[in-house]
This record gives sequence, C-alpha cells and structure tokens, in this order.
Amino acid sequence: MLNTLIVGASGYTGAELALYLNRHPQMNITALAVSAQSVDAGKRISDLHPQLKGIIDLPVQPLTDLAEAAKGVDVVFLATDHKVSHDLAPQFLNAGCTVFDLSGAFRVQDPEFYTRYYGFEHQHTDWLAQAVYGLAEWQAESIKQARLIAVPGCYPTASQLALKPLVEGGLLNPNQWPVIDATSGVSGAGRKASMTNSFCEVSLQPYGIFNHRHHPEIATHLGIPVIFTPHLGNFPRGILATITCRLQPGVTAQDVAEAYHNAYHDKPLVRLYEKGVPALKSVVGLPFCDIGFVVQDEHLIVVATEDNLLKGAAAQAVQCMNIRFGFPETQSLL
Amino acid sequence: MLNTLIVGASGYTGAELALYLNRHPQMNITALAVSAQSVDAGKRISDLHPQLKGIIDLPVQPLTDLAEAAKGVDVVFLATDHKVSHDLAPQFLNAGCTVFDLSGAFRVQDPEFYTRYYGFEHQHTDWLAQAVYGLAEWQAESIKQARLIAVPGCYPTASQLALKPLVEGGLLNPNQWPVIDATSGVSGAGRKASMTNSFCEVSLQPYGIFNHRHHPEIATHLGIPVIFTPHLGNFPRGILATITCRLQPGVTAQDVAEAYHNAYHDKPLVRLYEKGVPALKSVVGLPFCDIGFVVQDEHLIVVATEDNLLKGAAAQAVQCMNIRFGFPETQSLL
Amino acid sequence: MLNTLIVGASGYTGAELALYLNRHPQMNITALAVSAQSVDAGKRISDLHPQLKGIIDLPVQPLTDLAEAAKGVDVVFLATDHKVSHDLAPQFLNAGCTVFDLSGAFRVQDPEFYTRYYGFEHQHTDWLAQAVYGLAEWQAESIKQARLIAVPGCYPTASQLALKPLVEGGLLNPNQWPVIDATSGVSGAGRKASMTNSFCEVSLQPYGIFNHRHHPEIATHLGIPVIFTPHLGNFPRGILATITCRLQPGVTAQDVAEAYHNAYHDKPLVRLYEKGVPALKSVVGLPFCDIGFVVQDEHLIVVATEDNLLKGAAAQAVQCMNIRFGFPETQSLL
Amino acid sequence: MLNTLIVGASGYTGAELALYLNRHPQMNITALAVSAQSVDAGKRISDLHPQLKGIIDLPVQPLTDLAEAAKGVDVVFLATDHKVSHDLAPQFLNAGCTVFDLSGAFRVQDPEFYTRYYGFEHQHTDWLAQAVYGLAEWQAESIKQARLIAVPGCYPTASQLALKPLVEGGLLNPNQWPVIDATSGVSGAGRKASMTNSFCEVSLQPYGIFNHRHHPEIATHLGIPVIFTPHLGNFPRGILATITCRLQPGVTAQDVAEAYHNAYHDKPLVRLYEKGVPALKSVVGLPFCDIGFVVQDEHLIVVATEDNLLKGAAAQAVQCMNIRFGFPETQSLL
Repeated sequence: MLNTLIVGASGYTGAELALYLNRHPQMNITALAVSAQSVDAGKRISDLHPQLKGIIDLPVQPLTDLAEAAKGVDVVFLATDHKVSHDLAPQFLNAGCTVFDLSGAFRVQDPEFYTRYYGFEHQHTDWLAQAVYGLAEWQAESIKQARLIAVPGCYPTASQLALKPLVEGGLLNPNQWPVIDATSGVSGAGRKASMTNSFCEVSLQPYGIFNHRHHPEIATHLGIPVIFTPHLGNFPRGILATITCRLQPGVTAQDVAEAYHNAYHDKPLVRLYEKGVPALKSVVGLPFCDIGFVVQDEHLIVVATEDNLLKGAAAQAVQCMNIRFGFPETQSLL
Repeated sequence: MLNTLIVGASGYTGAELALYLNRHPQMNITALAVSAQSVDAGKRISDLHPQLKGIIDLPVQPLTDLAEAAKGVDVVFLATDHKVSHDLAPQFLNAGCTVFDLSGAFRVQDPEFYTRYYGFEHQHTDWLAQAVYGLAEWQAESIKQARLIAVPGCYPTASQLALKPLVEGGLLNPNQWPVIDATSGVSGAGRKASMTNSFCEVSLQPYGIFNHRHHPEIATHLGIPVIFTPHLGNFPRGILATITCRLQPGVTAQDVAEAYHNAYHDKPLVRLYEKGVPALKSVVGLPFCDIGFVVQDEHLIVVATEDNLLKGAAAQAVQCMNIRFGFPETQSLL
Repeated sequence: MLNTLIVGASGYTGAELALYLNRHPQMNITALAVSAQSVDAGKRISDLHPQLKGIIDLPVQPLTDLAEAAKGVDVVFLATDHKVSHDLAPQFLNAGCTVFDLSGAFRVQDPEFYTRYYGFEHQHTDWLAQAVYGLAEWQAESIKQARLIAVPGCYPTASQLALKPLVEGGLLNPNQWPVIDATSGVSGAGRKASMTNSFCEVSLQPYGIFNHRHHPEIATHLGIPVIFTPHLGNFPRGILATITCRLQPGVTAQDVAEAYHNAYHDKPLVRLYEKGVPALKSVVGLPFCDIGFVVQDEHLIVVATEDNLLKGAAAQAVQCMNIRFGFPETQSLL
Repeated sequence: MLNTLIVGASGYTGAELALYLNRHPQMNITALAVSAQSVDAGKRISDLHPQLKGIIDLPVQPLTDLAEAAKGVDVVFLATDHKVSHDLAPQFLNAGCTVFDLSGAFRVQDPEFYTRYYGFEHQHTDWLAQAVYGLAEWQAESIKQARLIAVPGCYPTASQLALKPLVEGGLLNPNQWPVIDATSGVSGAGRKASMTNSFCEVSLQPYGIFNHRHHPEIATHLGIPVIFTPHLGNFPRGILATITCRLQPGVTAQDVAEAYHNAYHDKPLVRLYEKGVPALKSVVGLPFCDIGFVVQDEHLIVVATEDNLLKGAAAQAVQCMNIRFGFPETQSLL
C-alpha cells in the first residue's frame, strides 16, 4: 500500500484523480489538498463534484504545512497551476515523495520556455533536468526510475501519440510541417469562473494561434516543427486532433499502418482503427487515446482523440504511477 | 424621432435592445451606457457581442454624468441590476425622460418585497406607486399614460400570459394552487463570470425553490397563490413553463380555448396552439410567447414558452415602448 | 459462474448491460443477440458503440434459433421492444432461464393496460401474474424468488423512489395529486433514426401529456393517482423529476427526512441530500438515484435524478440480478 | 414585384428562404413546393418549422404539375437534392423562369465530377455550361446576366471567401497546399431522419476525408489544389473553417490584410476582423461570412465562419437574386 496525497483536488482533473486512486487497490489516499487561499478549502470533494457523493467524501484541506502534509506520503499528485507546481514539487521531492506533476512546470527542458510561455522564471533547473516526461507509451523505462514525472499536457498527448510513430519511422516529408488542428472541451480551461468559460459565451473558436504553450511542448518532444492551432469546442470534455501530414515519397498506407501497429499493438490505452477515424464520443469518460488515419497519395490525415481530463491528464498520471511502481498498467483505469 | 439611451448595454438583454432600437425607424440611439465601474466601459458593443459587428458598433460609455447623459433624451431603457435601476430611474424621470426599466426594482407595489427578496430597502415608494407593470397584452391602456414602465421578468411573463386568461375567467379551482415548473436558459443569469454559469457546471437543475424573487411578482399580479419552481437548463436562451392546474367543476377544454382566444386573438406576440403544446425551439430568437394546453377531466396542463431575452425582456420592453408612443405594436420586432 | 445472454444488445441500454456484465466476476456472456431482422445483426458491438472497442468486441448475432440460443444459459436480459419482450420472455422462461425484462411487457398486472397503452393484447397473463416488479430498493424479497423480473421504466424508477416513502408513511394529503414534471435525455427514445430524435429537432418540450405509458406504471405501483408530464430535454442521458406534493396537515420537513432516511439509509444506490436538491450532472454515467427535497408549510418539492440508461434501466437490471443470485448488490456497478 | 416559387421548402434551407422572401418587398411567394413523394406534402410550413407560425403559414404543396407550378413565376429557388435539381432546373428554365439552384447540380463545369462525386451522369451539359457560379462577392457581373445561378455549397463559400483574395493576389506559396479543416453544424446534413444525425450519435468527428464532394468545388473554382477535411460538430448550425497556408517569401501580414481589404471593403456580407479571428457564435442566424487571420513568419492561419444555412445557402441565394434583379444587395437579409 502506498500513501498518496492529491494537491489541487478541487479541480476537474483532481476529481478524476481522486476517483481513480480511491478505487486503486494499492493506493491509500491520505488527504486531498488545495492551496490555503482556495475558496474551496474545507469543503468535501463531493460537495464540489456531486457525482462523487457516497464514493469519496473526503474534505479538501488547505495546504498550510507542507512538511506535515508530506509526512508518511509516498506519492504526490500535483493537479495545480504551473507556478504552484513549480514551487511545490521540489519541496515534496526533498521530503522524499515521488511526484507526478500534471502541470507544465517540468515538461520541457529549456528554461527559456517558462519565461516566454508560462510567465515565470524557472528556479529549479536541477529538478527540471531530472524530470521524466510521462508520455506513458514511449517513456516507460525512464518512468520506472523517476522521482519526478511531468505528465504531458492534453493536446501534446494526443498530438504526440499520433505523430511519434511517423517521426520515429522517418515517414514524414521534412519539407512540410504537420498541421495539427485540435478542438478541446471547455473543461480544459479548468474549474473556475471566467467569461470565456461562461455557458453563453462558448462556441467553436480557435485561440492561442501560434502562441499556445503546448506548441513548444509538442515540437520539442517530437523533435520536428509543427503548426498547432487549438480550438475551444462547445462540449465539456474531450479533445479531437486532426493532423494533416505529407509523407515521404513512396511511403504507403500500409507503411503507416505498420508504424502504428509496431508502436501500439501492445499498449492497452491506445486503440488503433483499422478503418476510418474515431469520433470524440468514443473516448469521453474513458482512459484511451483512439487513432485512425486516411492516406491519399502522399497526403495523410491522422485523427487522434482522447478525454482531455483522462488520457490527457488524470488517467495518464495514474498510468505513469502504475508503471513507476510495477502495478498493472491499467490498474483502476478500466 | 425619439432619442433613446440604453443603460446596461453590455449585457445580453442590452445587446438585444440595441439591435431592436437600432433598426427602429422612430428611434435614435443617442448613446449606449454602462455603469462607470464596468470593465466593459469604453469598448464597442460589437466587441462584446460580435454578432453585432457592422450592424451597431457604438461604444458602451461609462455613465459618469447622468444629467449630461439625459440631455435631449426622450426614452431611457434600464437593463441594469435591480438596485442600480432603483437608484437611476428616479433621476432619469426627474430629468423628464420616460423610463422602461427591465429590472425588478419597480414591479411590485409592496415595498416589503424588496427588503425580503431583493435585499435592499426601497427608497422611491412614490415612483413605485406610479410605475405601470408592462405586461403588454394586459396593460396597454395604462402603459399609454405611464412615465415609468416596469417591464415584467422573464418567468413572470410566460407564467402570467398562460394563467391570466384562466384567472380572469374564473376557470381555476381555488382549492388547488397552479404548479409552475419552468426551465430557463443560462442567459437568464446575465452576462458575467460565475461558477454557476460555467459551461462544465451547467446541467438541468431546480434552484430558488420557494424563494425565487419572481414568485411574489407572479402571485401578486395574478392575484392568486401559485407554486413556482424555476430550473436552470443546459441551453443559452429560452424559457419553457409547464403549468399544472385544476379546473372548476364543469369547465371544459372548449372553455379554456375560448378564454385564450378572447384574450389573445388580436395580440400579435402571443401565438396560440390549436392542438398540442409548443417546444422551446419555436420561440428562440423570436419575440413571441407561444401557448398550448391539454385538458383531461378537471386537469389542465398549459405550456408557455418564450425567449427569455426577448418576450421575457427586450422585445417586451420595445413592445411597451411602441404602445406607449403609438407606434405599431410589433415595430422593429418582426 | 452464470451464463448470460443479452437480447437487444445493439441499443443504448443493451450496450450498458454488456459493459456491466462483461466486468461482472460471476457472469459469463455467452452471446449478444439482436432480432434477426436488425440491420445491426452480425456487426461487432464495438462498431455500433465505439466506446466499447477493446473492452467488449463480441458480435451482435441474429436471434434465429431461440432454443439454441438458450442452451446452457442461466440468465437472459431482454433490452427489447415491449412486444418483442412479450413474445420472447415466455420462451426463455420455458427453456429454464431466469429473465430480466427491461421493457414494459410485464410491469403492470392489469392486461387492459397493454391494449390501451402498448397497442397489443397481452397473451401471457400467467407469466404476467408471476412477474415481479424489479424496483430494487422495495422488492428485494420478491426478487430473490422470481423467475421473471420486470425491471421498471426510467421515469417510474425516479418517480417511485421519490414518492414511495411518502406514500407508505401516509405523509401526503390525499386531496391533491402529486405533480410529476420530469425531463429525460434523448437516449430514452432508443437508438434509432427518427425526426423526433434528430439533432436539429430536439429542444425542451413536453410530450405524451396525460397518455404516456409510464403514467399507469407509476400510479399502479404507488397506489395513488398522480399527474405525470414527461419532457424531452436537449441532452443525451439522464432524467430529472421535479415533484410537487401537498403534505398532510402537521407533517414537517423532519418527518419527510425521516421517511427517506428509513427507506434508504441502507440502500447503496439511492443517495439522499441532507440539504438542497440534486442536479442532473450528479448522476450521468452513474448507477444512483439522487433525491433531495424542500418543504414550505404544507408544500413539498422533491427532486429525483438518475441516469435513464443506468438506474433507469441497465444498472437496476443488474442490481436486481445481483439481489436475485445473492451477489453483492452493487457488484460491477461501482 | 416578382413572383417566386420555392421548391424544397420543407427543409432547413427552404424554411430560411421562405422567411427571407416572405419579407422581401419586391418578391411575392406564389407557392411553396416539395416533391410529390414527400411525407410533408400538404402540411403547413409552420407545422414543419414552428418558429414560422404566424409569420408564414403557407402549405408546402406537392410538385405534381411543373408546367402549372411555373405559370406566371419569374424566379424559382431549388432547395432540393442534387439529382432533383438536375432534373427540375432545365424544365423551369425552359418555362422562362430564372433559377437559383442551391444544390450541387450545376456548380462545376466538368460533367465527370457528377459521375464521380454525385453518383449520376449529368444530362444537361448545355445548361451546365451556361450556369453562373453564385459566389456573390466575386461573380456579381456574371450573375446580373444569368438565367441559372448555381449557389455555392456551404463549405465552399467559407473556404473560397477566405482563400480567393490570397490566390488572386499571388500571396500563397504554390509548393504547399492550403489545409482547410472545417466543422459544420448538423443542419448541414439536411432535415431527415438518420442515425448519423441522431442526437445521441452526434459528436465532433471528421468525415468524407479526401472524398467529400465539396473538395472539387473548392479546388476547381479557386484554381489551386487544397486539402479539405470536413467535420461534423455538435451544434445545429454554423461552419467554422480553419485554413493553414504558407505564404510566398516576403509576403507580410500587411499584404494579407490589404488583399482582404481590397476584396471586401465594399462587400456588405463579409466582415473582416482587424485583430484576432471570429468565433462561430458571431454569425449564427446572420447572413455574414466573418474572416480573420494571424501571420507568423511565412505561416498564415485564416479563420472563416458563416451560418451554413444562410451565407452558406439561403442568404447567399437571396443575395444573388438581389444582385441579379438590381435590388439592394442585402435587401431582406439584414
């Protein structure tokens, strides 16, 4: 039994983490925490997320004394804002905990990115250097050794799972950047009051064109330039990415199918479509990333979809944790 | 040509008012205003409501000097919070303007209601006494003389249009209170950031049970007790009210049909269904209240639906204004 | 291990049944079946319901030879149309199977109801007399002995769970019929092409006023008259029922709370709200019925909500099955 | 006064046409028609589209005798299936009517396209050669002379309005095909019962990859190859197209802005965004196409949005008609 603490349990991702970890046979939730300033401090998680009523009714406690909170804790999940994670992770690591950070605070190696895209100077470049990027299907060996796992962002998970087999296999024409047009549900913006998230204001629309912080995360970890255009969609959860690529001359649909098969035939949380492409509804509420594609001549359209809160956040964090501690990879997820 | 000022033009109702009045051949919009504290002050209305781009692009100006703003203005529309309307209306009236107030500040005669339901002491009982309740189909004669028209709330409009012909005709069994179950789109809560309105938080749910401020408005103006249970629905606009009544012994479906026919056959903004009941989609974006009913024995179900921002707010305000100044009743509305 | 057959596995309820039974440790799915005429016959269930891909990929086979299909089968779930269930259930019963019928074919004792509300003459009044109504929280003892369990309809489950403690406790004023206004998601109409279910046609609207077939089911099993007005809502799943009642003189909120507590404090799938009332989102995707209420004087508003496909269908069927065979009541449901 | 007949008035586009033409001061609707086989034949249009009740209540008549129906008719609008339009248009043309065809039957000059994409052999290549493509902002001079106007498809309208100024100005790098990812509301599939349009089946998903019939329409009229990936979105109406382009070396954002300004500064139904890109909600219910863009280095993202039933169908048809007969271009549209 491992003792675990979830920080940021009041948010949408935090609630999903709580649900997964609550039913995990090897995990014991010692506490749910939120920042001391949170208006939710002291409330029961099931008052914030009524679907949890009767399943998990723990209070979300203000994180006032970190040393106290870390006592006896083996594993910490940080479902917190980037800057908060940046500040908290080193303290929990120094207290001996293994940390799964769901924010962007330790995802890219170059500290410059933080200044430019996240609006703060990174103070923990030592930990940044040691952090393992938790793209579970591709980093299992590194994850097994890691103290600090930076769980990938929602868009980057779908984008990389779709593109990495093609990049690794050298199937893409380097003269043309893949075009990633992706649409996310509103929960991607977090649980908070804002005009942007307000019911009557939401409709399909692009945002963050050429400057979304997931862009460098995708490009850096893939090792190729991409064009990434995120959109807000009028649904609560899920991401669908439509990715337009140009293949190297001579590359066939069969080659593409083989690249995906080789990469994922033994990965339980990636589902490949033999024919056609997935729809968003296939994955909502589930821990999978679904991938399908169509080839015409040298043109390739790949479609990847996932629940942004699950494979794009909480499920992948738990998947990484399962890998890290040698539990079955899908334990508590299916 | 009448000069008009819209206060509270940044909200959803304000935008609808601007659209109607902008195309009204007898009206000239002198300015759009918001409170001096509003974060929207100085922005163009079409930046707040992009659907208006190219149609009406006036700025929403901070209302800093009311005397200046009222100069030369014949008609003021207040699409403001209850307390703001309460404070502003007398000043505009004293400056000689005719005021159409879309808030609840002057809707019920008894000042006690304000203390209990609106959270403030009413300071202008003189104007309260003079205010005419703008339920257009029933108050035309009074409206024609009025200086201050209190435009009814969204739920009260649908509820009263449905029930008033039955009450006036003595068709209802007084031993049983009508049960009004009504569901409103999220725009009914106004244009503002809040957790309640947040896209992922909205789902069908009752609220304000036994203590919604529209309850006394409905009961007082109908003159009978009712049970009123409002619900939030997961759609941007529209209200549908399902009203369960008990008829007096001997009253038939034919009697009910006649009561409605007599009340509304010459009213252009109430559409009666000869058969069946209306659906919400029938009225979204339109200035109508649609009414249908079914009778079985002494039981009567009446269904009334309207766009909460239109017949439940902006369209009824303009309808009252048209009546007040002798313009065609549906001018600019259809 | 019990062998089970699901008939009607191509529908929304059938898919939920398949998911539950597939993960049930005491159940073995021998086959998924559909009527021989179905256009879906021969397809994999995960092609019809892509969310099931990789979880359960069995084909839905045409039910051509019932005797063959029933061979070795202990338990049959019928997620079929009323008339189909009416025809099939006796055959499976005669083959020795225990049958859980999710249609209306055996829910009410009086055969007249079938002629009037379902459009067919009931031919199996012997089985009708033996059928046990599977309102799980109230019929556990009878279910344990039953061969044929008629799982309640979606509206009747929410309505009865809300009203039965009040009726049994004699808390309701008999002079006033409870008014049940309930709104269901579109999946309640089944998985089929129709104009009514077409995306652009759906909006909030009442239907089946005074003649919905769930009306006699509710009234008969409660033993009191009610007014029941169902509505279609613009969401895929879930039901929310707002029920307006009149209490007997002297009955207090505390009395109501006690009645609910006594009925459900040890029932794992009914969640009572100490304060306030539930929202639809609390139960979507979950097997619970959530109940809350507000009292003012002699007026009582009860709100009950459930997922129409789960506690209103598949989850309650599995709950009944768990009770019938002595498994833990929530096995595979939570 | 011109007499006009609308064929296909039962559909979503037909209803919008009826609404526009009913309020057009120079048009007189002689009849609304549907094919003789339609289940809607004989019903009032306001029974099919209840929002029209009291505004236009004409019956939709079966088109049994075309010669009779065409008598005295100046203008025919065909809001019919491609093959139906193909068959009917020549007959109405021979009867002396001017025809605005909203189907794809006369949009592309090469008859081969019909065999390949529309599934029928084109029999009227003479009329095909005379048909004028009704992209209103670009074809006004030809439209003024035309007998047969082929109103563009919904995706092609948004795509071409966005790309044509760039193509005409030679701003695009010919080595890289523009990538058009576009999402349409469900009304784009027409008013009919189908599993695909069924409320519970709809979620965001690509379809028709590499083989949608709007692809050749876009590429042919632009004169350049493009990659076009349509998506179904979970909303009733509207299209948003995100178009990724590569600019010629040296082309700047200023050059792009000028190209759009020159093309559209005097076009009332194209709204250009000086900053940022439009959201879907900006245009729903309105006759505009909104266009915005962002440039970074040689990369250009253009976003175009429109109501698929309006600027993508009915509004553009009426706009073409206004141009054709010398009425103000936006008559009855704003």
